[in-house]
Amino acid sequence: MHLSKSEIRYLTSLSQKKTRQTEKKFVLEGWRSLKEALSSSFQIELVALLPAYVSDPDYQKILSQVHERKVPIKEIGELELKKIADTVHSQGVLALVHQKEHELNSSLLNRSSLIVAADSISDPGNLGSILRSADWFGSDAIFLSKGCVELYNEKVVRSTVGSIFHLTILEGIELTVALKDMKKRGFRVVAASADGKQAYWDVPFEKKNILVFGNEAHGVSKEIRDSADVVVKIPRFGRAESLNVGVACGILLAHMRSHHQPID
Amino acid sequence: MHLSKSEIRYLTSLSQKKTRQTEKKFVLEGWRSLKEALSSSFQIELVALLPAYVSDPDYQKILSQVHERKVPIKEIGELELKKIADTVHSQGVLALVHQKEHELNSSLLNRSSLIVAADSISDPGNLGSILRSADWFGSDAIFLSKGCVELYNEKVVRSTVGSIFHLTILEGIELTVALKDMKKRGFRVVAASADGKQAYWDVPFEKKNILVFGNEAHGVSKEIRDSADVVVKIPRFGRAESLNVGVACGILLAHMRSHHQPID
Repeated sequence: MHLSKSEIRYLTSLSQKKTRQTEKKFVLEGWRSLKEALSSSFQIELVALLPAYVSDPDYQKILSQVHERKVPIKEIGELELKKIADTVHSQGVLALVHQKEHELNSSLLNRSSLIVAADSISDPGNLGSILRSADWFGSDAIFLSKGCVELYNEKVVRSTVGSIFHLTILEGIELTVALKDMKKRGFRVVAASADGKQAYWDVPFEKKNILVFGNEAHGVSKEIRDSADVVVKIPRFGRAESLNVGVACGILLAHMRSHHQPID
Repeated sequence: MHLSKSEIRYLTSLSQKKTRQTEKKFVLEGWRSLKEALSSSFQIELVALLPAYVSDPDYQKILSQVHERKVPIKEIGELELKKIADTVHSQGVLALVHQKEHELNSSLLNRSSLIVAADSISDPGNLGSILRSADWFGSDAIFLSKGCVELYNEKVVRSTVGSIFHLTILEGIELTVALKDMKKRGFRVVAASADGKQAYWDVPFEKKNILVFGNEAHGVSKEIRDSADVVVKIPRFGRAESLNVGVACGILLAHMRSHHQPID
């Protein structure tokens, strides 16, 4: 069956942040993201694809999972897809997915040992990259401060390459308050900052850590730097003015994990 | 003086890769990039800015450097700027800059100890991020294989945040040939790959290293992996399908530098 005009209108309307926030839904693009969504507990309301893919052998396994989940599969035209999709790389498929809300509660904090916090990260690609690295290095939870770019922004979703479906992500966190609470619960608050006093390799990491990364232009807020247990820097050996925040996050996570056993 | 119509037409034409390659020039946007260009040996042909900035005290230092270099400063209108600039973040200034060609020769290889090679990196943001990290960690040279996105692509230039003006970057390199030559000169070829046999932290780095990072979808080419001295992986602790290549590059560079003395 083909998508109706009103369905197309609805899907298109979700390219607006305001609509996504009212409707608590978002559109994902691409087979890899769909595959990851299907292995998650995210609710998928609808899958739409170009007619050419309906019987393409490469995608039958994914489509049979869609059937098993009893999610309606509808056809969409090339032009309609272009209108809805943010990218030319939608790979002929998109899905309407319900947003998921996680809560900051004791049980989450008790079972967590590594948390990544994003303090007003504004670039969607950077937030996506942070989430992807947080997933790769097995973070237990991610805190997004109030000032962060919206999690369900198409570019964020796309640049997580499916990791958005693996992670426990808490949005709209009042970070200064949350960090105080976490310190009481035995977490060590490690803020990353270009003006940090200690090199990251000199800092002993405790059993429970929360790593805080800041805005691209302004860094971690002064209030958080002042209250952090330690402010670390990644020492510079050349002339670059700064490191990309997604790269900095990957470096600290890799360092923390370099004495642990990987899963594969 | 205001930019002439033909100057505007010329600057706009440089948004085409073909034109950039024929003319061997490119357009940079933003004050920070201009500042870095001025501290480099890149030849700047022209600076154009919105009239509002001509006497803005924040930028007089940079503008006086432009004067010292005897580079003509011209005014540009908002709409004209929008037409030329790739981004909304051009910050009211752009410059016409000559491309710079570096050659692969013995003197470069003799004085180098850390080289980063990009094998068919296709995303401009990823290449920019690799260059920025290579600069931060003090790489001596960068090799871009024939299949890489063009160095002077606006998005690459922008995402290097000025590092493009600090680095010795060689474009259009036939990597398999160059790597063979470098091995003879005592370099250890370290390829990064998700299917690498050794964790990066278990690999001893020699005095002269070249790190190779591959295409976003296909990784480092098989030929290069087969001829590399070692193929390393960044072990996974979570469920992400892969790491961003710019992040992977930052992690390996940081690791290699973690036993050296930083410059500041």
